[in-house]
Amino acid sequence: MNGASRLRFASRMDAVAPSAVREILKAAEQPDILSLAGGLPAPELFPAAEIARAYADVLAHEPGGALQYGVTEGFGPLREWIAQRMTSQGIDTDASRVLITHGSQQGIDLMARVFLDAGDCVAVENPTYLAAIQAFNGFQAKVCAVESDDDGMLPDALEEALRTRRPKFLYVIPEFQNPKGTSFSLERRRRLLSLAAAHGVPVLEDNPYGELRFRGTSLPPLAALGSDATVVYLGTFSKTLAPGLRIGWMVAPPEIYRKLVISKQAADLHTATLAQRAAANLLERFDYEGHLKTLRAFYGERCETMLEGLKAPAFKAARWATPEGGLFLWIRLPPGLDDLALFQRALARKVAVVPGRSFFCEPGHHGFVRLNFSNVAPAKIQEALRRLGEAMAEGIREA
Amino acid sequence: MNGASRLRFASRMDAVAPSAVREILKAAEQPDILSLAGGLPAPELFPAAEIARAYADVLAHEPGGALQYGVTEGFGPLREWIAQRMTSQGIDTDASRVLITHGSQQGIDLMARVFLDAGDCVAVENPTYLAAIQAFNGFQAKVCAVESDDDGMLPDALEEALRTRRPKFLYVIPEFQNPKGTSFSLERRRRLLSLAAAHGVPVLEDNPYGELRFRGTSLPPLAALGSDATVVYLGTFSKTLAPGLRIGWMVAPPEIYRKLVISKQAADLHTATLAQRAAANLLERFDYEGHLKTLRAFYGERCETMLEGLKAPAFKAARWATPEGGLFLWIRLPPGLDDLALFQRALARKVAVVPGRSFFCEPGHHGFVRLNFSNVAPAKIQEALRRLGEAMAEGIREA
Repeated sequence: MNGASRLRFASRMDAVAPSAVREILKAAEQPDILSLAGGLPAPELFPAAEIARAYADVLAHEPGGALQYGVTEGFGPLREWIAQRMTSQGIDTDASRVLITHGSQQGIDLMARVFLDAGDCVAVENPTYLAAIQAFNGFQAKVCAVESDDDGMLPDALEEALRTRRPKFLYVIPEFQNPKGTSFSLERRRRLLSLAAAHGVPVLEDNPYGELRFRGTSLPPLAALGSDATVVYLGTFSKTLAPGLRIGWMVAPPEIYRKLVISKQAADLHTATLAQRAAANLLERFDYEGHLKTLRAFYGERCETMLEGLKAPAFKAARWATPEGGLFLWIRLPPGLDDLALFQRALARKVAVVPGRSFFCEPGHHGFVRLNFSNVAPAKIQEALRRLGEAMAEGIREA
Repeated sequence: MNGASRLRFASRMDAVAPSAVREILKAAEQPDILSLAGGLPAPELFPAAEIARAYADVLAHEPGGALQYGVTEGFGPLREWIAQRMTSQGIDTDASRVLITHGSQQGIDLMARVFLDAGDCVAVENPTYLAAIQAFNGFQAKVCAVESDDDGMLPDALEEALRTRRPKFLYVIPEFQNPKGTSFSLERRRRLLSLAAAHGVPVLEDNPYGELRFRGTSLPPLAALGSDATVVYLGTFSKTLAPGLRIGWMVAPPEIYRKLVISKQAADLHTATLAQRAAANLLERFDYEGHLKTLRAFYGERCETMLEGLKAPAFKAARWATPEGGLFLWIRLPPGLDDLALFQRALARKVAVVPGRSFFCEPGHHGFVRLNFSNVAPAKIQEALRRLGEAMAEGIREA
């Protein structure tokens, strides 16, 4: 190990570091903490018995194929199933354009590999999903935050970013965004696509939460809006079946698809064969639609509990948009309140939230916190909000 | 899709392309072809029933944990088991230095991420594992091929490479190398380590086949030789349990480990929780040593069949080293014979082999073919070699 002091790491390692906020959140990982800080689906809804049956069936009837190496593109019948579901959602594709990945995080990473040189720019919503920024940083990209409101990116700001920063691609979560829980309006979707097309900039549409709408009307994904823009779509079973399977997918036009496959092959050869075959087996006989309905009702109820709790006087000066789906609710704190200070006050009361600053690309955003409702029982949501209200009231008094 | 013609890909995409030989080999993927071209373990030896029991057990008793997100480093009990096995092989480690990956291919890729800037050099054996070169190319590295014989890299050539090319790390497969099936001698292992230490260059030791020794005496892995060199070790269950699980691991010193974890998190968050828990469950009660004994006897017998077949007069002018383990046998063709021409002659007789040129970093090596014995039944090995002998005899006559 003596040589370690002389190690010469890649320069990209200077651009990546464990997030400071993530380190802080580790302090909140105690069993006696009521945590609204997570981003996890509710484990009681994992279809564990159905998954067990699928694994047993696959291992009994096709053990050789299920345990052997597979092709990089993914298991054919699973790609077929996904292509059909995508088609039913208006995305014009066939299995030849579906690439199976180890979760949609890998899809973000592969897109970065295929498009990003050091110094290149990616345009993102502001705030946005933290681990996407980390993936882009890993390729030494500059992340260009486009001003966004509760209806998505502001078209003027996007146009300026496209013109002046020439991003290699746009990264957006149009439905129930992480961290805000809000969605692009239909008009903003169309505007984004026409601007992307006009500037010849592809769009990476990340849609992990789209199936979890419990209120309002579904809007078509960007990939279904039939524009001239190039859209690469990311889907996942992490929020609808279980994240521990690590199965996501990309839908991409042929020219990009070929490069994604080459990159995936270098990255890890292919997605786990057994997990893919079990998922395909499961989906063939499982009432997926019925399961999604259960999920939506369940998360809708938890969100409702949270919205009820937020009616308490302590939150009167705070603001939030009512989520129509997904896992998160985003709170704008009353003027003068600081997210980290509130985090500490809440933690002193054994409640954890995520300081909002961790989702912004640039410093200076200290007036938000993210709350999760998917993985907390209603009674705990109520109690956590009661304590959070106390913490907030204390903060307001002292501000 | 109209914008596609204006897509601006990363410059790394210029450096990667589907291998021409791999394209040629696709022609050999017909059911009536006797293929010695694969690199797959024998599916009849996958412990499918035991694996099925492990999945069933985990899904029955810990479904919430097994299907939920996990930590990037990997599942604790699996890391513990691996650390203990590594220790039993002389590698001084504990679980805190074990990172679970989606196969050892991902370990190669993560090492490249952590160390390689565009234009950097990696020193490798010549010939070496094709997909490692592809991973390094994906980071725009230059691959520096160090002259090697059947005992490993030649020390003088390695020293010159270290001095003149200043590689960021060395990549070696010291045991039953792919494609050659040969191993570093103990003296060459020591020389490599002392040269690496003297030049402060870390070593990536890829050991997918080490457990598959069916002849001769085991030699310690580089990571067990207690030198001053920095060694990152790659292990995998792909050849001992099943590749379809996609579970490999890295053992790395702390400074490198932390950077590998950050990179893995950006790449795909973590390795599939369910597969990790099932593997840990399996290994806890499975007779792994007994299973390895079965594998060794099985592959040893197939290798023996191949060596018998090679005694035919047609192969008299060819040369090979007797493998002591692994999956491959590497043939040096008689002077004047070309690997691609032999491939075509063999294919005309419904036999597939891999032209050796695909494992070299630079053009001009046309006198080798790689044969696989692990995934071909003995009777088929005999028949395939009979036809390959005909093809070779024809080539010699016409040369």
